[in-house]
Amino acid sequence: MNIVELIKKKRDGNSFKNDEIGFLIDHFINSSIPDYQFSALLMAILLKGMDSSETSALTNSMLNSGKIIDLSSFKGKKVDKHSTGGVGDKTSLIIAPIVASAGIYVPMISGRGLGHTGGTLDKLESIPGFRTDLSLSESMKVLKKCGAVLIGQTKEIAPADKMIYALRDVTGTVESIPLITASIMSKKLAEGIDGLVLDIKTGNGAFMKKYKDSIELANSLIDTAKSFDKKVIGFITDMNQPLGNYIGNWLEVYESIQVLKGIVKNDFYLLSTKLAGAMIHLGKKAKSLQEGERIAKEKIESGEAFNKFQQIVKLQGGSTNYIINPEKYPKSKFGKTVKSSGNGFISNLNTYQIGMASLELGAGRRKKDDIIDPKAGIIFYKKHGDQIKKGEIICELYSDSKARIKLAEQMIVESISFSKSKPTKLKLIKKIIY
Amino acid sequence: MNIVELIKKKRDGNSFKNDEIGFLIDHFINSSIPDYQFSALLMAILLKGMDSSETSALTNSMLNSGKIIDLSSFKGKKVDKHSTGGVGDKTSLIIAPIVASAGIYVPMISGRGLGHTGGTLDKLESIPGFRTDLSLSESMKVLKKCGAVLIGQTKEIAPADKMIYALRDVTGTVESIPLITASIMSKKLAEGIDGLVLDIKTGNGAFMKKYKDSIELANSLIDTAKSFDKKVIGFITDMNQPLGNYIGNWLEVYESIQVLKGIVKNDFYLLSTKLAGAMIHLGKKAKSLQEGERIAKEKIESGEAFNKFQQIVKLQGGSTNYIINPEKYPKSKFGKTVKSSGNGFISNLNTYQIGMASLELGAGRRKKDDIIDPKAGIIFYKKHGDQIKKGEIICELYSDSKARIKLAEQMIVESISFSKSKPTKLKLIKKIIY
Repeated sequence: MNIVELIKKKRDGNSFKNDEIGFLIDHFINSSIPDYQFSALLMAILLKGMDSSETSALTNSMLNSGKIIDLSSFKGKKVDKHSTGGVGDKTSLIIAPIVASAGIYVPMISGRGLGHTGGTLDKLESIPGFRTDLSLSESMKVLKKCGAVLIGQTKEIAPADKMIYALRDVTGTVESIPLITASIMSKKLAEGIDGLVLDIKTGNGAFMKKYKDSIELANSLIDTAKSFDKKVIGFITDMNQPLGNYIGNWLEVYESIQVLKGIVKNDFYLLSTKLAGAMIHLGKKAKSLQEGERIAKEKIESGEAFNKFQQIVKLQGGSTNYIINPEKYPKSKFGKTVKSSGNGFISNLNTYQIGMASLELGAGRRKKDDIIDPKAGIIFYKKHGDQIKKGEIICELYSDSKARIKLAEQMIVESISFSKSKPTKLKLIKKIIY
Repeated sequence: MNIVELIKKKRDGNSFKNDEIGFLIDHFINSSIPDYQFSALLMAILLKGMDSSETSALTNSMLNSGKIIDLSSFKGKKVDKHSTGGVGDKTSLIIAPIVASAGIYVPMISGRGLGHTGGTLDKLESIPGFRTDLSLSESMKVLKKCGAVLIGQTKEIAPADKMIYALRDVTGTVESIPLITASIMSKKLAEGIDGLVLDIKTGNGAFMKKYKDSIELANSLIDTAKSFDKKVIGFITDMNQPLGNYIGNWLEVYESIQVLKGIVKNDFYLLSTKLAGAMIHLGKKAKSLQEGERIAKEKIESGEAFNKFQQIVKLQGGSTNYIINPEKYPKSKFGKTVKSSGNGFISNLNTYQIGMASLELGAGRRKKDDIIDPKAGIIFYKKHGDQIKKGEIICELYSDSKARIKLAEQMIVESISFSKSKPTKLKLIKKIIY
C-alpha cells in the first residue's frame, strides 16, 4: 500500500477497506507516515466523510493501538457515560457515585477543559489532593473497592487517538463526525465496558450547534458502539444555556455536593438522574429508563450517592474536608454581581460566550499548558425563561483579578438577551436514541 | 492572522483575501507555517477550489517569493510557450529556434520528466555537454546573443513553487486547477515575458484526461495571465497518441533535427509550427495566427531555424557533432521490433501506458533521482488510424537491458487496440482560446 494513493483514494470520495485503515493508523503511529501526509488525509476525511464501516474500522485500529482494560475479573456490569461537553456540564461528578452505589462498575476516563468547555479532570482536581493520574493498576484497585474511578487518558489507552487529536487540533480537522466518533469510541471501548450512555449536547454552547449535526454524531457513535457489541443509549440534550447554575471548577464540585445532598433539584439534577438511570438500566439493575431514574433519585435521597462520592474522593487521594464543609473552601479575591438593567424575561443566553467569560475569569484554558484557577467562575441566579426585574442579580462573577472580572462582566452582559413576553421553554432532553 | 482559522476558512468553502494568501505563502516559505498545516490547507484548496481572484493572488505571492527577470534592456518582444506535458511532446526543441529566428526573444524555463511524461531538460541534456543549469546572468548572455535560451528552474525563480510542489507531490494535492495554474504562471511570469502560448494537452496521455478539465485549466491559466497584463493564446491539443513518432530523450532530439531540416512533416511538425506561429503573432511579427504559422514554416525551409538550433546548442555548451551527424550518436545495446499479429487499423493507443513503457526502457524516471538512459526509447512506424497488415512493424524498442525490453514490449502490445474498419481521425488541435 502507498500512502499517496490512499490519500488520493479518500480525496476522490472512495471508501477505505479495513486493512487500508489499519495500514494508515499503524504507519502513522510508528512515524513511517509523516504528519504532513496524515494531515492531508485528515482534511480529505473531513471533507469527503467515512461510512459506518470505515468509522468502525478506524475506531478498532485506534483502540488496538493501545491497551484494552480487562475487567473480566469484576463480577457485574461495567457501564460508562460520555458527554460531548458543554458549559456547566458536571454530570460525571454525581453520575459516577450514583451508578456505583447502584451496584454497577463505572470505569470513567475523562478529559480536560479546552476553550469554552470545562473538563471533568480539572473539576476533580480542584479538590485538594485528588489524583486523576492514577496508573491502570491503581485505578483497578479503586474501581474494585468502591465501584467507580475517574481518571484521565493514560499513555496505555489509545495512543493513536492522542497523536491524531494533536494533529487535528492544529490543522482545522477537529469537526469531522467520523473522526470525533473514532476518538471518543476508541477511548471508551478501551475501558472494557459492557454499555455506554451518550450525552450529545446541541445548541449554542455545544460543539454541535445544529440539531441535525448532533443527531448525525449520535447515530455515528451508536452505530460504532453497536458494531463492537456494546449496549448503548444516546441522549440529545440542550446546551442553549449552562447546565445547572454553577460554572467553574470548584464551583461545579460545590453544586455537585448540593445535588448529592438532595438540596438542589435543578436541570443539572434532572439530567444527571436521567443519564444515571439509563446507565442503571444498561447495567441490568432496572427494567426501564424510568425505573433506572427512580433508583438514581433514591440513591441521592438515601445519602448513598454522597457517601460514595466521599469514598471515591478519599480513594483517589483527595481531602474530604471541603466535601463535608464546602463553605470553607478558599474564595476568590474579588466577586462582582451582574444586575438587570430593566424588566422582562431572559430570552437567550450565548452559552459559548458565557463559557469564554468563565475562561477569562481563570476557570479555563486557551492553550493546553495554561494554569487554571479552581476558585474562579460564575454563579447564575437566573436562567432562560426567568422573569427579572430592574436591579435584580442575574449572576455573580469570581476571580482573583479585577481586570478579568471587568472583561468577563462585559462579555456576560453581551451574552444575555431579554424579551417582554415569556419565551418558549427550552426542552432539556430533545431525543433519546436506543 | 491565524493559520488554523485560515485552514478552516478554506475548508468551509470561503474565499481568501489577497493579504491572507500573502500571509500563507510568506509564512510557509519562512517555515513559520509547518508542512503539516500547509498540506491540510492544500487538500482544502484542492477540494474546495479557488476563484480567479484567489488564483491570481496566489500566483502573485509565489512569483514574488523570488526574482523576476528584468528583460527591459532587450529591445523586442519576449514570448514563451508552456505545455502541460505528454508523451513525445518535444515541441520546445524546435519552437525556440523557429521563434528566435523570427526576431522574438524566447527565454524558456523548462522542467524534467517524471512518470510517463518526458521533460525538455532531459531531452536537451542527451546532447553531450549541453548545460541547462546556466546561472541567470549566463542565460541572459545566451539570450542576448541568439534570441533563445532553454534552462531549468533556478533557485532564484519562484522558490515558493518549488517548496509547495514538493509538498503537493507527496500529499495527493497535485491535481488542483488553481494550484497547477499558480505553479505554472509564477514561473512563466518570472521570465519577464510579454506573451505566452499555452499548449494544454487532453486525452489518455495527458495530465488532464477529460476535455472539460482541460478547458477549465486553459481558462484558469488564461485568466491569470491576463490579470498580469500578459498576452496569451491557449491551444487545447490531442494527447490520445504520442506526438510525433519518436519517444525517448535523444530519439526526440533526433526527430527534432529531422523536422528542423525540413525532412519530416508529421503531426509534431504541424503542431510545432502552429504554436510557433502563435508566438510569432504575439511577438508582433505576424498579423494573424495563419501568417505566423507561414513564417514558422519558412524558417524551417530556409534553414534558419536549424542554424539557430545549432547556435543555441553551442552557446549552452553542447557539442554540435551529433546535431550535424545524428546517425553517429551511440545506439542502445538492444533493439526489438513489435509486429502486428493481424490485419486492421490502429483504433486506440493507451498513451499513458506507452509513456510508462518508455520509462521502463530507461527513458524516464519513477523517482526524482533516477538516472535516465538518453539512448532508450521507442520509434513508432504506425500510429492511430493507420492500416496495418499481419507481420508489419508497428514500433521499435531500444534499451540497454533485454529484460526491460521484454517488459516494455508486453506493455506496448497491451496498449494498442485494433479495429476492422478505419476509426474516426483524431483532431490534433481541438480548440484555440484567445
